[in-house]
Amino acid sequence: MIQTTTNYLQNINTPDDIKMLEEVNLQDLAHEVRHEVVSSVSQTGGHLGASLGVVELTVALHYVFNTPQDRLIWDVGHQAYPHKILTGRKEEMKSLRQKNGLSGFTKRSESLYDPFGAAHSSTSISAGLGMAVAKELSHDNKHIISVIGDGSMSAGMAFEAMNNAGAQKAKMIVILNDNEMSIDPPAGALSRYLSKLASSNTYRDIREFAKKIAHKFPKPLEDMAKRFEEHIRTGSSNGTIFEHLGFYYIGPIDGHNIEDLLLVLKNVRDCHTDKPVLIHTLTNKGHGYIPAETAQDKYHGVSKFDIQTGKKQKPLSNNKTYTQVFSDQLCKLAYQDKKITAITAAMPSGTGLQKFIEAFPERSFDVGIAEQHAVTFAAGMATEGYKPFVAIYSTFLQRAYDQIVHDVALQNLPVRFAIDRAGLVGADGATHAGSFDIAYLGCLPNFILMACSDEVELARMVLTAYKIESNPCAFRYPRGEGKGVIIPDNLDPFDIGKGRLVRQGHDMAILSYGGRLTEVLKAAERLQQDHNISITVADARFAKPLDQQLINQLVKYHPALITIEEGSIGGFGSFVSHYMSQNGHFDNGYKYRSMYFPDKFIDQASPYEQYDEALLNEKHIVRNCLKILQKDNALQNQTKFSAR
Amino acid sequence: MIQTTTNYLQNINTPDDIKMLEEVNLQDLAHEVRHEVVSSVSQTGGHLGASLGVVELTVALHYVFNTPQDRLIWDVGHQAYPHKILTGRKEEMKSLRQKNGLSGFTKRSESLYDPFGAAHSSTSISAGLGMAVAKELSHDNKHIISVIGDGSMSAGMAFEAMNNAGAQKAKMIVILNDNEMSIDPPAGALSRYLSKLASSNTYRDIREFAKKIAHKFPKPLEDMAKRFEEHIRTGSSNGTIFEHLGFYYIGPIDGHNIEDLLLVLKNVRDCHTDKPVLIHTLTNKGHGYIPAETAQDKYHGVSKFDIQTGKKQKPLSNNKTYTQVFSDQLCKLAYQDKKITAITAAMPSGTGLQKFIEAFPERSFDVGIAEQHAVTFAAGMATEGYKPFVAIYSTFLQRAYDQIVHDVALQNLPVRFAIDRAGLVGADGATHAGSFDIAYLGCLPNFILMACSDEVELARMVLTAYKIESNPCAFRYPRGEGKGVIIPDNLDPFDIGKGRLVRQGHDMAILSYGGRLTEVLKAAERLQQDHNISITVADARFAKPLDQQLINQLVKYHPALITIEEGSIGGFGSFVSHYMSQNGHFDNGYKYRSMYFPDKFIDQASPYEQYDEALLNEKHIVRNCLKILQKDNALQNQTKFSAR
Repeated sequence: MIQTTTNYLQNINTPDDIKMLEEVNLQDLAHEVRHEVVSSVSQTGGHLGASLGVVELTVALHYVFNTPQDRLIWDVGHQAYPHKILTGRKEEMKSLRQKNGLSGFTKRSESLYDPFGAAHSSTSISAGLGMAVAKELSHDNKHIISVIGDGSMSAGMAFEAMNNAGAQKAKMIVILNDNEMSIDPPAGALSRYLSKLASSNTYRDIREFAKKIAHKFPKPLEDMAKRFEEHIRTGSSNGTIFEHLGFYYIGPIDGHNIEDLLLVLKNVRDCHTDKPVLIHTLTNKGHGYIPAETAQDKYHGVSKFDIQTGKKQKPLSNNKTYTQVFSDQLCKLAYQDKKITAITAAMPSGTGLQKFIEAFPERSFDVGIAEQHAVTFAAGMATEGYKPFVAIYSTFLQRAYDQIVHDVALQNLPVRFAIDRAGLVGADGATHAGSFDIAYLGCLPNFILMACSDEVELARMVLTAYKIESNPCAFRYPRGEGKGVIIPDNLDPFDIGKGRLVRQGHDMAILSYGGRLTEVLKAAERLQQDHNISITVADARFAKPLDQQLINQLVKYHPALITIEEGSIGGFGSFVSHYMSQNGHFDNGYKYRSMYFPDKFIDQASPYEQYDEALLNEKHIVRNCLKILQKDNALQNQTKFSAR
Repeated sequence: MIQTTTNYLQNINTPDDIKMLEEVNLQDLAHEVRHEVVSSVSQTGGHLGASLGVVELTVALHYVFNTPQDRLIWDVGHQAYPHKILTGRKEEMKSLRQKNGLSGFTKRSESLYDPFGAAHSSTSISAGLGMAVAKELSHDNKHIISVIGDGSMSAGMAFEAMNNAGAQKAKMIVILNDNEMSIDPPAGALSRYLSKLASSNTYRDIREFAKKIAHKFPKPLEDMAKRFEEHIRTGSSNGTIFEHLGFYYIGPIDGHNIEDLLLVLKNVRDCHTDKPVLIHTLTNKGHGYIPAETAQDKYHGVSKFDIQTGKKQKPLSNNKTYTQVFSDQLCKLAYQDKKITAITAAMPSGTGLQKFIEAFPERSFDVGIAEQHAVTFAAGMATEGYKPFVAIYSTFLQRAYDQIVHDVALQNLPVRFAIDRAGLVGADGATHAGSFDIAYLGCLPNFILMACSDEVELARMVLTAYKIESNPCAFRYPRGEGKGVIIPDNLDPFDIGKGRLVRQGHDMAILSYGGRLTEVLKAAERLQQDHNISITVADARFAKPLDQQLINQLVKYHPALITIEEGSIGGFGSFVSHYMSQNGHFDNGYKYRSMYFPDKFIDQASPYEQYDEALLNEKHIVRNCLKILQKDNALQNQTKFSAR
C-alpha cells in the first residue's frame, strides 16, 4: 500500500490552497492524493485505474492554471477523482457513485470546477473549443484545457473537433493523456502511431531542452516563453498528425514527473501561440498502486476491495450476468455457423465479447471507440452474406443513430444489435442509462425489436436474432446478473412478433416488455394475496412487430390493461396505445395506462432505488392496478404498504 | 456546350462493354458520358457538379476493375450519375429523382452495381471495410474500392473507418476524390492539409515515375507492379496523415487524366500490398461544362437548366423558403444580441446561414461535415452564456444524437436547434426525409419542441427559441417555400407549451403539429362544404411541453379527436395519446386517432406525391374524419373524390 509521510492534503480545500505549496512539495501532495483515491475507491468501488494515472497531472494543472476561471475539462470524467479531491469534494468521496452522493464522472451541477459534464468519451475537445470561441468573442483571456485519453482519440468526434480547432486557430490546450489503454487495450492505427511517437527521440529532446532553459533562464519567464515557442515552432516533431491538423504538438512528456509537467504547462500558459496546443503526456493507468499496475485491466472499474492486498470483494450472487448469457449463446452459435461475426466498439470485456474474441479471433472486430463506424462496417459485412452481431450498450448506441437509420434500416440489412445495459444501470447514473433505444429504434421501418425478461429469454432472443435474415433486429437486456434460471441445451427461436401469457387472471391485464416482468409478477402475487385481485400477466417479447392478437385477447377478456417497460415515452407503450386507438379499442371506453420512465434524468443509485424513483417497482405497479380498478380503500392501505 | 464526335456510349450497356474499347478511346467515351450527364440533368435537375468531376474516374474504374464482382462504393452517391449511365441505367436517366424513377443516389435495390446505398456522407470506407473483411473471411480475391470526397473526409466516421482499416491491414482501395469542395467550400484543418499535399512535388514525381515505368516495362505487369510497390513503400510521401493511419498513400494524381488513372489503378489492382491503399486524385467539381465550372457552387444541386447557356429555370413562385425565413429572423435577432452564434455542419447555403456568415463572420462557425462536434461545440458555447443556434437538417441531426442526449439534454443547456427539411423532402427521397426527429427528441427530458405551420409561425419560433434560456429547444420546419404569408415587423414570442385554435367547429377536432395544417384546413373546408361537418382545428405549436389545457378543451367539446404530424410513430401523437390515457380520457370512451408516417421508407417523388403515399393529404384527412364519425355513405362518396 501507498504510505504517506506528509499532511498537505488536509489543508487543501480548493486549488488556491495548492498554490500555497512550494513546487518541491507537489510530489508529496500527489502521493497523498493517490492514497486518498485508493482509500476512497476501496470503500465505494469505482473507476480506479484511470484516476491513478492522472494524479500528478491533476496536481500540476491546478497548480499552474487558475481554475475555475480557467476551464479544465476532463474527457469521460471517470479519471476525475483526484480532481474532485482537490476541488472541495474530498469529504464527499465516500459517497461516490451512491444515491445522493458524488457522481462517478464530472458534473456541472456538482461543482463550479466541472465546467462540462461527461461520461461518454471524446467530447472534451468539442466542448473546450466552444468555450475557447466564447472566450475570444468576449475578449477574455482565460485558459481552456481539455484532457483526453488516447482511447478517446479513436472516436471520430475527437477528430472532428481537432479538425475544426486547427482550422479556427483556437487558443486552447489539449492534453493527450496517453496511457495506451482505453477500458481494454486500444484498437486502431492511431494507437500504434501514438506508440511510435512515444518511443521517438522527441521525448528526450523536449525534456533536455526544457531543463536547459529552465536552468539558464529562471527569469524572466517571457524570454523563456519566447524560446519555448520558437522551439515548438521549429521542433523536431513537425509532421505529426496533430501538426497536420493545425496544432502545436509538444511531447511526449512524462505525465508522472511533476517537474516536467510544471515546466511545460507554465510555458504553454504563458506563451502566446496562434494555434491550439497539444501536449502529449505519457502516463500509466493504475500508476503507484501495485495491485492496479499489475492487473490486466489496471483496475479500470472495480468493486470494493481490500486496500492492502487489492483483493476485490466477490459479488454476493453467482448467477450469470445477462452479458455472459449473451456471450455464451453467441459463441455456441458461432461454432455452428462460420458466417457469424461480432463487433465491439472498444468494449470487449464490458459486452462479454472477450470470450468470442478468444474463440474466433478472425471473426471478431474491436473497432475502437467508434460506434458510427462499427454499425456501417457491420452493414457492409451483412451485404456480403455475413451475420454480424453488433454489441453496444444502449447509451453508446446513440452514437451510431444515423448509421442505424441510413445504412441498416433503410437498406433493410440483417445486422443484429445486442443492446446491453438497457434500462437503468445503477452507479454509473444518468449518463449511462439505456432509456431511449425503444423509442429511437421503434420508429424505424424494417426493424424487429425484442427485450428479454430472464436469461432463457435472452438466450432464445440471441438465437432468434441469428435466424432473422430478412431484417435488422435488436434485442435489449439489463445490466447485471440474471435470475439464476438454468438455460436448457436445446432452445427454440421465437415466432416473430409473438408474446406469451405468463399468468392467467381476470380482473385486469399487464403487458410487460423486458426486465420489469419480475416486478410485475411480484405485484400480481401481492394483489392476489392482499386484495384478492387476479391479474393476467403477459410478456410481449417483441415491441416490433407487435403481437396484435395478444393485445386483442387481453383487451377482450379484461376491463383494463397496463403496459410497462424499462424505457422512455415513445416506446412500447406508444406502439400499443397507437394500435389500440387506431383500431377503435378506446372508442367505447377502455382503461389503458402505460408505465414508463418519467420525464427526467435519474441520477446514480442502486438499480432498485432508481426504479423506485422511476415509479416502476412492485409497489408502483400494485398502486396503479388499484387505481385503475378504482379500489380506493385498498389504495389507502397500499399507501401504508409503500411506506414500509 | 460539350460537343461529342464519337458514338461509343450507345454501345455501352454494362461495364463489360467498356472493356471492349481501346484505352485511347476512353477519353472520348468520357466526353460522351459528360455530355449525357449534362443533358440528363438539364431536363431533370439534380446533383450536377460532383458527377461532372468524376467522369474520367468512373470510366477508368469500370475499365480496370471487374464490377459488380469487384465492389465499387460511391460515398454520398450523388456523384454516381456517370456510374449509373455506364451500368445499364442510361435510358432511365430521364426519370432521375422522380417518382418511380432512378434515385439521385446509389441504391442497392436499383442495381447490382450499387453494392452499398448512400446519400449521407462519409460511410463508404466503413461499408467497404466490412466487405473487405467478408472477402478475407471467404478467401475471395475481389477488389473493394471506396470513393470518397475530401469534404466527406472531415466527418469523424471516415476517420474512425481509416483508423480501423489501417489497424486491420485490410485489403481495400480508398480513392480520395479531392475537389476542394463539399457542397460549400470545405472547412477544417484537414482540407488545408490536403491542399498542401496537392501542391507538393509528389504529384509530379508519381506521374513522371509512372510514365517512366509504363514506357520501360510495358510487360510483364508483375515486374512493374513490384517496382511500383517499392516506390509507394519508400516514396516521398511518407508521413502523410494517411500513412500515419496505416495506409499506402499514392498521389496526388490528376483525376481527369485517364492515362494516369489507368496506370495507377492497374498497378494498385495487380500489386499485392499488406495494407489498404489510398489514392489521392485531384478533380474539379463541374469539370468540362463551363457554366458549372464558373459557378460558385459548381452546380452542386441544380434545377432544370438550359443546356446551351446553363441558365437555370426560375422557380414558379416567389415565396420565401422556410430556410430564408429562419435565416432572416436569426440575422435580425443577431443584430440586437451579440451573444447569438450560428453553427452549420458544412451547409451554409442549404441551411440559409450564408447570410448570417456574411453579416457576422466572427459569430458563425462552419465546422465541416461534423454534426457530432457541431452539437457539443455549441453546448460548450452555451456554458459560457452564448446563445448558439445549430442549424442542421432533420436527417443529418441523427448523426449527433448522442451529443444531443449526453451533452445538451442531460446538462440542460440552452442550445437552439433549427431543424430544416423536417418531414418528407421530395426528390432527395427516403435518405433525406426528416421523419424521426419528433420521436428521437421527444423522448428526451428537458427539451422544448416546436414545429411551424407557416412563415410567421416560424419567425416567432426563432424568437421564442432565442428567449428560451433555461432549456434546450428545437423547432422544425419543412423544405421548400412558404405560403407567402407576410411577416410583420413586430413579433411576439410564444407562451411555452401553448397552442392555438385556428378554426372553431363542433363535430370533431383535429390537432395539428407542424406543416400539415394547410391540408387540415383544406380538409375542414371540404368537410363543411361537401358533408356539412364542422371541424375544430387547432395548431399545437409545441410537442413538448404539451398544451394539456388545449387538449382537455378539445376533448371536452368534441366527440372525436385526430392528431396529425409530419413524422413517424413515437412522436406528437404518442405524447397526446399518452397524456389522454394517463388522464383517463379513454376510460369511458373517446374516439381518438393519430395520423403520422406509415411504417415504411418513402422513395423520391414530389412532396405532394410523397404525402399521398404517406396518407397524409387533404383527402386522407377527410376520409379519416368521415370514418371516425362513421359517415359511411359519405365515405363512399369520398372514395370517388380521392380517385380524382
